[in-house]
Amino acid sequence: MEQTEQIKDHGGWLKRFVHKSECCQCDMTFSVFLPAQAESQKVPVLYYLSGLTCTDDNVRTKGGAQRFAAEHGIALVMPDTSPRGDDVPDAADRYDLGKGAGFYVNATRQPWSKHYQMYSYVTDELPKLVASELPIDASRESITGHSMGGHGALICALKQPGRYRSVSAFSPIGNPVNCAWGHGCLGAYLGDEKNEWKNWDATELIEAGAPCPPMLADQGGDDSFLADQLNTDKLQAACKKAGLDASIRMQDGYDHSYHFISSFMGDHIAFHAGHLRG
Amino acid sequence: MEQTEQIKDHGGWLKRFVHKSECCQCDMTFSVFLPAQAESQKVPVLYYLSGLTCTDDNVRTKGGAQRFAAEHGIALVMPDTSPRGDDVPDAADRYDLGKGAGFYVNATRQPWSKHYQMYSYVTDELPKLVASELPIDASRESITGHSMGGHGALICALKQPGRYRSVSAFSPIGNPVNCAWGHGCLGAYLGDEKNEWKNWDATELIEAGAPCPPMLADQGGDDSFLADQLNTDKLQAACKKAGLDASIRMQDGYDHSYHFISSFMGDHIAFHAGHLRG
Repeated sequence: MEQTEQIKDHGGWLKRFVHKSECCQCDMTFSVFLPAQAESQKVPVLYYLSGLTCTDDNVRTKGGAQRFAAEHGIALVMPDTSPRGDDVPDAADRYDLGKGAGFYVNATRQPWSKHYQMYSYVTDELPKLVASELPIDASRESITGHSMGGHGALICALKQPGRYRSVSAFSPIGNPVNCAWGHGCLGAYLGDEKNEWKNWDATELIEAGAPCPPMLADQGGDDSFLADQLNTDKLQAACKKAGLDASIRMQDGYDHSYHFISSFMGDHIAFHAGHLRG
Repeated sequence: MEQTEQIKDHGGWLKRFVHKSECCQCDMTFSVFLPAQAESQKVPVLYYLSGLTCTDDNVRTKGGAQRFAAEHGIALVMPDTSPRGDDVPDAADRYDLGKGAGFYVNATRQPWSKHYQMYSYVTDELPKLVASELPIDASRESITGHSMGGHGALICALKQPGRYRSVSAFSPIGNPVNCAWGHGCLGAYLGDEKNEWKNWDATELIEAGAPCPPMLADQGGDDSFLADQLNTDKLQAACKKAGLDASIRMQDGYDHSYHFISSFMGDHIAFHAGHLRG
């Protein structure tokens, strides 16, 4: 991997890398924040999966996470939201399919399946790469994300039992088989068979009995996507029925933006830090 | 003034307003963060003056200030960096003159003088407006800023003795009469007479004996503008010679970006909070 940027940030270093991804068959960009503690020891890692239309840049610029990652001595790994490049298929007229909208699944349908392997990318290829090249303790991983990426974090945790120490989400798409964003992406990437979609849906996975690490989720009460896309109530009901260790909080007055995310970032990183110790 | 946006943020409200500015003779946009404490009482206020090319949006999105303003119960007022609109003269081929580059002076030369009255705007018209319309205690004001706006904060404090309780700056242009950015803006806005420029230069004002409230400044050691534009050493020497209560800190490895600003925002707001109490 090639380091393309290095910026001092909260006593640590914010770095950007580009590498040839085998599973996505294209060059992929990601950012990493290494706290000062990483200069003398391997540090635990928190993956942050971004939402629709984002790149690795949004959270590193607007999320306010570096302050808390520095305080707790945690590395942040911030991948892109899809494969990129001229060879990668896209739905140019849509913000919610194709580039910027990989949905963290492994696509099985043409023309998407060659490049859109984001689940394998964020759970396998990227973790192996950063563990081999950076002072990251791969035995201490947690995962979080926003919206599409909040759901991405949930499915990564649910589909990899025992892997992540904790999972959190900001305004996750709670039950994509039952919303337009989910229909659009899952239909395109996985085909028309809705039973297959359930293997990539957090609420459905929980209902099917998937184990889950401790979970924290925050949802803005004035989020304009809450009514039609997010299905927080369905996620909440599934967690309750399954008896999961899950705290899903409605935050009155907040919207879907990074102002919401940054307002609760401190809580999320402290939550993960508690599980990433030792 | 008209409120055009309201976003819940760190328990308070981030608002944006547009109003017809008398001194700038155009519509001006600014943002305000009101912490939760402002719901029951008037709160002290910190002005943040932004740097070249910025609007009110940069700091509210990337500065990380709302977290600390919420903690300390301080309102943030974030003005634009210049007059705006189709009628406002500009230097379209330059990022460092005209729109986005008002330099917080009152222009006296054509074609700038009609609209470019940013000093009066940020020290007089805007404070009167926010004090009359918002729960802000106008007797408790401090001021900060970045780069061009860091210098702007310094000259506002130096030219208004007794007005601000404290002043701070991130990577300020320390001595604009001696750098290209200063020559460009001061020459255009104020004319060729360099003695006139000195009335708008922090180092020159300090050398001429202007009193100054307690000052904190941070400067990144790897800032690419440090050698040619910022003259931190001249500002530092002037403060020392004048015996000012000024802490000007070199921060090893940091650049000129908002990653630098957000890394030290907590220190700056805590510094101002100490002076804004009671």
